Amino acid sequence: MLYVGIDLGGTNIAAGLVDDEGSILFKGSVPTAAERGYEPVVKDMADLAAKMAAKAPAGRGGVRSIGIGSPGTIDSATGSVVYSNNLGFVNVPMVGEMRRYTDLPILIGNDANVAALAESTAGAAKGIEHSVTVTLGTGVGGGVVIGGKVYSGFNDAAAELGHMCIMMDGEMCTCGKRGCWEAYASATALIRQTKAAAAADPGSAINSLVSGDLGAVNAKTAFDAAKAGDAAGRAVVDAYIRYVAVGLRNIINIFMPEVIVIGGGISKEGDYILTPLSRIAHAEAYTDRIKLPAFKIAQMGNDAGIVGAAMLGK
Amino acid sequence: MLYVGIDLGGTNIAAGLVDDEGSILFKGSVPTAAERGYEPVVKDMADLAAKMAAKAPAGRGGVRSIGIGSPGTIDSATGSVVYSNNLGFVNVPMVGEMRRYTDLPILIGNDANVAALAESTAGAAKGIEHSVTVTLGTGVGGGVVIGGKVYSGFNDAAAELGHMCIMMDGEMCTCGKRGCWEAYASATALIRQTKAAAAADPGSAINSLVSGDLGAVNAKTAFDAAKAGDAAGRAVVDAYIRYVAVGLRNIINIFMPEVIVIGGGISKEGDYILTPLSRIAHAEAYTDRIKLPAFKIAQMGNDAGIVGAAMLGK
Repeated sequence: MLYVGIDLGGTNIAAGLVDDEGSILFKGSVPTAAERGYEPVVKDMADLAAKMAAKAPAGRGGVRSIGIGSPGTIDSATGSVVYSNNLGFVNVPMVGEMRRYTDLPILIGNDANVAALAESTAGAAKGIEHSVTVTLGTGVGGGVVIGGKVYSGFNDAAAELGHMCIMMDGEMCTCGKRGCWEAYASATALIRQTKAAAAADPGSAINSLVSGDLGAVNAKTAFDAAKAGDAAGRAVVDAYIRYVAVGLRNIINIFMPEVIVIGGGISKEGDYILTPLSRIAHAEAYTDRIKLPAFKIAQMGNDAGIVGAAMLGK
Repeated sequence: MLYVGIDLGGTNIAAGLVDDEGSILFKGSVPTAAERGYEPVVKDMADLAAKMAAKAPAGRGGVRSIGIGSPGTIDSATGSVVYSNNLGFVNVPMVGEMRRYTDLPILIGNDANVAALAESTAGAAKGIEHSVTVTLGTGVGGGVVIGGKVYSGFNDAAAELGHMCIMMDGEMCTCGKRGCWEAYASATALIRQTKAAAAADPGSAINSLVSGDLGAVNAKTAFDAAKAGDAAGRAVVDAYIRYVAVGLRNIINIFMPEVIVIGGGISKEGDYILTPLSRIAHAEAYTDRIKLPAFKIAQMGNDAGIVGAAMLGK
C-alpha cells in the first residue's frame, strides 16, 4: 500500500507519497501562508495531496489514506487543531475541511508525535517496539511510540515532554509556566545561556566567534567555542548537556523505552553530545542493575514530518 | 475464571482468590520473614497459593494463573526480582523457584504497577482505558495502565514516577539521586517538612499536637494543625500540596491519562487534598484548552496488591 503524508509547517506545507517501509517515492511543497486563514491552507494541502496520489505507480495497491502532521494541540477524534500558536489556528476543523476535497481516510497527529513515528518506522528506532524521540530545536518536542503506535493519551495531548517541570519555580517557559525542560534544554535556551556566558566573560572565544556581536550567537556557537578549547564555551556546553540529561533521566525512569532518539538542530552535534548525554542519563537513572535504553541520533531529518504523517494510516 | 494473587510485602505475604471483576473470594496471609532467604519465602507463597486455589468453588472455571506483586525492580521475562532493597533480594529467580510447586502459569510484576492495575480493574479507575495511580506513602510509587494493561517498558522497570526529577540539584533522595519527586512528595518528606516548620515556629499548633515531641510528628500532624487554623501547619500543607501537584502536572503533560488515582496514607485526607491538587495541577498543565484528567482517591486499600497481582493473569 501507499500513503500520502502532509507535513504542515509554519513556513511550508510539504507532502509526499510514502510506502509501507516509510520510503518517500515523490514529494513536493508549497508555502503555508497561514495568515490567509485555514480554508485556503487546507485547499493547498488537498491539492498537493491529490498531486502526490496521482503519482502512485500502478501495481502498488493505490493510496490508502492521507495523514496530516500539524503543530499544536490536536483532537484526532474530531479531526481539529485545537490550538496552534505557530499557525495562529484555534479550533480549526482540519479534517472536516479536508473532507471537501477527498474521499480517502484522513488522519491527523501532532508534529512531534509523527516525527517519533517516522523514526520508529524507518529511522533510528526502526523495528523497535518502545521508543521515545526528543527534538531539541526552537522548543523541545517529544513523541512516544509504544507497541509501534504513537501514544497520545485519552485526549491526544500526551507526550508534551518539553513541558515536564525539571526545576520547580525555575525559568519562565514560553508556555507561561515555570521550570519546563524546554526552558533549559531547547536551542533557544542554549542561545540564551551562551549569550549570558559571553557577556560575563568578554575574553571568551564565544565573543570572538561572533566578532563581538552577541545577536549573531546561534545554537552552534558554544559547541564551536568548546571544541576550540575555550573554557567559557566548555562550561556552557557542560551545563547545557546536564539540562538535557536530567529530562532524559526522567524519560528513562518514566518510560524505559528500548531506544531514545535525539533529533532537532542540536542533534547535528552527533556523538559529541550523544556520548555524554547517554553517560549522565544512565548514571542518574533510578536503577543501573538492568539494561538501560540505547541513545541514538535521529535519521529522518526534514522527511520525518511527511513519513510520520503518512504512517498514521498504516 | 479465577486467579490467585500474591502480595509479597516486607512484613507479610498476603494472597487471595480473585474473580474476573477483581473481587476477592478468599484471602489469607503469613509473615514474610525475608531474612530467611528466598527459598522458604517462596515455599510459603506457594503453600498459601495452593490453599487459595483449593477454595475455588466448583463451576467457576478453575484457577487460571498465579500472579505475584513484589517490591523492587522486576524482570518479568526471566521471572526474577532483580533488586529489592525492602526484601534484601538480589537476582532472586522468583518464578523459577515457584515453578517447583505448581504447574499453573506464574506472572510477576512490581507492587506499584499491580496496585495501579487493581484500581483500573475494580477501583477508582474501573472501566478506564488510560489511568495513572500515584501512591503517596513512605515513598512515592507509580503505576501506569494503558489500554487496560500495565505499562512497564522494555525491561519492566518503567513508571518509577517517584524518581522523576522535579528539582534539579535539589534534595537528596533515598535512591541516591537528587531532586526526585519522592524526596518532596512522600509522607516521609512531609514529616521532615513538618518537623522543620515546628522547629522554626515553637508556638505553632504542630508542637502542641505532639506535646513538643517532634519525634511524634507523623504525616497527619501538619494536616491536623492546618485544619485547626494554625498558620505554620497551613504553610506546610500548602507547600506540600504544591510539591505533589508539580509531579501531577508532569504526569498530565506526559501521559494525559483519563483518570489520575491518588493512593497511599496521604490519600486518607480525601477531598481536603484532592481538590487543591486537581486545581493546581490543571492550572499548571501545558494546555487548558482540552478536557484534562479527573482526579480520584484510591479505593482498593490493602487489597490492591492481591487484586492487582491476580489481574496480571487476566
